[in-house]
Amino acid sequence: MSAQNLGQNASPLRLGIAGLGTVGTGTVKIIQKHAELLGLRAGRPITITAVSARDRMKNRDVDLSSYAWEDDARALALREDVDIFVELIGGEEGIAREAVLAALKSGKDVVTANKALLAIHGQELAGLAETNGRVLRFEAAVAGGIPVIKAMTESMAGNEIRRVMGVMNGTCNYILTRMESAGLPYETVFEEARQLGYLEADPTLDVGGIDASHKLAILAAIAFGTRPSFDAVEIEGIERVSIDDIRRAADMGYRIKLLGVAQMTGRGLEQRMSPCLVPADSPLGQLQGGTNMVVIEGDSVGQIVLRGAGAGEGPTASAVISDVVEIARGVRIPSFGQPAARLSVPQPARTAVPAAYYIRLQLTDKPGALAKVAAVLGDSGISIDRMRQYGHSGHEGIAPVLIVTHKTTPEAIDHAIEALPRTGVIAGEPVELRIEEV
Amino acid sequence: MSAQNLGQNASPLRLGIAGLGTVGTGTVKIIQKHAELLGLRAGRPITITAVSARDRMKNRDVDLSSYAWEDDARALALREDVDIFVELIGGEEGIAREAVLAALKSGKDVVTANKALLAIHGQELAGLAETNGRVLRFEAAVAGGIPVIKAMTESMAGNEIRRVMGVMNGTCNYILTRMESAGLPYETVFEEARQLGYLEADPTLDVGGIDASHKLAILAAIAFGTRPSFDAVEIEGIERVSIDDIRRAADMGYRIKLLGVAQMTGRGLEQRMSPCLVPADSPLGQLQGGTNMVVIEGDSVGQIVLRGAGAGEGPTASAVISDVVEIARGVRIPSFGQPAARLSVPQPARTAVPAAYYIRLQLTDKPGALAKVAAVLGDSGISIDRMRQYGHSGHEGIAPVLIVTHKTTPEAIDHAIEALPRTGVIAGEPVELRIEEV
Repeated sequence: MSAQNLGQNASPLRLGIAGLGTVGTGTVKIIQKHAELLGLRAGRPITITAVSARDRMKNRDVDLSSYAWEDDARALALREDVDIFVELIGGEEGIAREAVLAALKSGKDVVTANKALLAIHGQELAGLAETNGRVLRFEAAVAGGIPVIKAMTESMAGNEIRRVMGVMNGTCNYILTRMESAGLPYETVFEEARQLGYLEADPTLDVGGIDASHKLAILAAIAFGTRPSFDAVEIEGIERVSIDDIRRAADMGYRIKLLGVAQMTGRGLEQRMSPCLVPADSPLGQLQGGTNMVVIEGDSVGQIVLRGAGAGEGPTASAVISDVVEIARGVRIPSFGQPAARLSVPQPARTAVPAAYYIRLQLTDKPGALAKVAAVLGDSGISIDRMRQYGHSGHEGIAPVLIVTHKTTPEAIDHAIEALPRTGVIAGEPVELRIEEV
Repeated sequence: MSAQNLGQNASPLRLGIAGLGTVGTGTVKIIQKHAELLGLRAGRPITITAVSARDRMKNRDVDLSSYAWEDDARALALREDVDIFVELIGGEEGIAREAVLAALKSGKDVVTANKALLAIHGQELAGLAETNGRVLRFEAAVAGGIPVIKAMTESMAGNEIRRVMGVMNGTCNYILTRMESAGLPYETVFEEARQLGYLEADPTLDVGGIDASHKLAILAAIAFGTRPSFDAVEIEGIERVSIDDIRRAADMGYRIKLLGVAQMTGRGLEQRMSPCLVPADSPLGQLQGGTNMVVIEGDSVGQIVLRGAGAGEGPTASAVISDVVEIARGVRIPSFGQPAARLSVPQPARTAVPAAYYIRLQLTDKPGALAKVAAVLGDSGISIDRMRQYGHSGHEGIAPVLIVTHKTTPEAIDHAIEALPRTGVIAGEPVELRIEEV
């Protein structure tokens, strides 16, 4: 059958949608609004047969009356009139996982936005899909509407990936950019974000870097052909980022971002999620507010930067629909870009590759104080690229000192940070932040 | 057969590569270097059977000894041991087109990087591919390694596209950014670019905006479901961009870019390629050197920005390989995202949507001069957002004046630009440039 005729003759592709929160209702809305366009592009009509959610009575601002209702997502997954099970419930265990397993085992294709599920059980689920001759797709799980899964599994198929990194939690980026623009401390902006409804019910998922780390683990698996290994991500959230550091970093030409970085090194797979300094005039540095950005580096293509809305009804539903249309078109690509059984168990790198670091400390007004600091850095094998001492202030005569080091190892930095307070010329704890080369 | 077994059991996919310039040799190199990785990702081995180019004797820095040689690309297209015909010759007519037609008619899939061919004959070729049950893919034709064709035909399938725009000729962007950073006039930097080998043999293709307009016509077709219609692109190159305008635009917070914009309006399809002002701190404004950027706006996903190398051996070959892997995986998507027969003939918009404009003129030192200028703008229905008059200089007392208008129509601007010299207070011709909202 030629592609021209597909649209007229083909049977509809029938969806069962489990989970009717923001993304679920957004997905229903697109299918209702763009039915004709979707049929044209997919080559066959795309319809919804049945839906499922916790509370049937909730007002959802979308007409669900023509769809069958299931109280239990697992029952939805088993319906014979469903071709694709669309899982938009969330959560790495429980009902979401059980329903996805049931759907794959009963011969359904699965589309999900569930980053936790994929980051933790991704290899098992992808393997199950392949064993059953089904597909499992999850474009919406990483960076909302940004087509990063497709870019990595398909567009960069001819590349050995060198590094993938990104700002993948809009709430954290909102908090950091708002701190800078309004000059407000972390706690104040955190409270603002909570009141605006930007935070997850458990805010640690956002500000603790968990959510972004789920996404990083998925990207790392695709990039390096390894099993998703969320447990091996070194995670630090944004809770310790101070307005002082944001201001001082800006003085030195940097911005602080919660940056996820994955790269394969000679010592294993490095997966880090932490506040890092990036040049203020780089694409990552210029990223404001809730927007997400992913940077992928391949040996042939060089650096690709993708930028867009990382969350929200429209963008995330748009990603869900792209997976649905792909399946409707008959596209069947392994979940992680290669057979699940071939994904290797990664050896986690025990330490990050060398980098420049930013160090901020409070120097007391004593003769030879700066010399002692410099000596500690020298003893730790760290050489200084730039240093700036601000004026002494307050009755105790404390002077902020900023140091940008040349490339050095995390171990050398740890050594110096531990030794600095012992000089007796430092007030409080020194702060160190990695400067990522972007 | 499950995906796990595909790699071991499947027959190799055999390529015939026509054209062994930069992109062709780059494609051969990736296939040689990443044979195992490609096999794993594609689910079957990818091999080269035969190649073709004008000059067999040329030293190409790549080992071609294990491939059959054809002097004629059309003969290569007809070989029985070729599954995909990879056309990297270029040119909208002649041998490239004939060979692609021959390949499609003889049942081969086709991958090409030929933007001119697609922009002009795209609908015919896509239709022929579909009639013959073959696919025609061309990721490499637009913006090199940036996966913009895939993003539009696949990732944004759930969106009505509102606007697509971009900086898609690296040479022009190099010239414009180099003019700004070095403070050099157009002619000097043009000559530099020529000596660096950045310009096409016919430089009008680059600086005249032709090459970028081919790309825009392809993107517009995918975005709006219309036949590619290069003839309807309103094209203006960068030849008239002066260092004065670059400096003055920077004073007002803008950068000048050769920007392609396509949008569907109530009055038809607008396709424009012209030097425009964009805010200096926008992603497009910050784009330096030879890098490309495409911005796509969809009704669900919002704004997606894709950035990367728009040309060069590695990036363009990476895009060619992504199409090859896609075909190897059995993916068969209509060339323009929907059946070629359904692509409508677009009604070209006779005029662009309203925008703010930048006007620069040389005011003579006469009483009431500025009032006369303001009166002309008012009579044309143009209101002024910002104006800046610099000091009079030279023995003739000429003062540069910059005006940023509120949104107005191109007709009103044309009217004003025609009327301004008649005031008798202007030296030389006034300059106007559109300010694109990005």
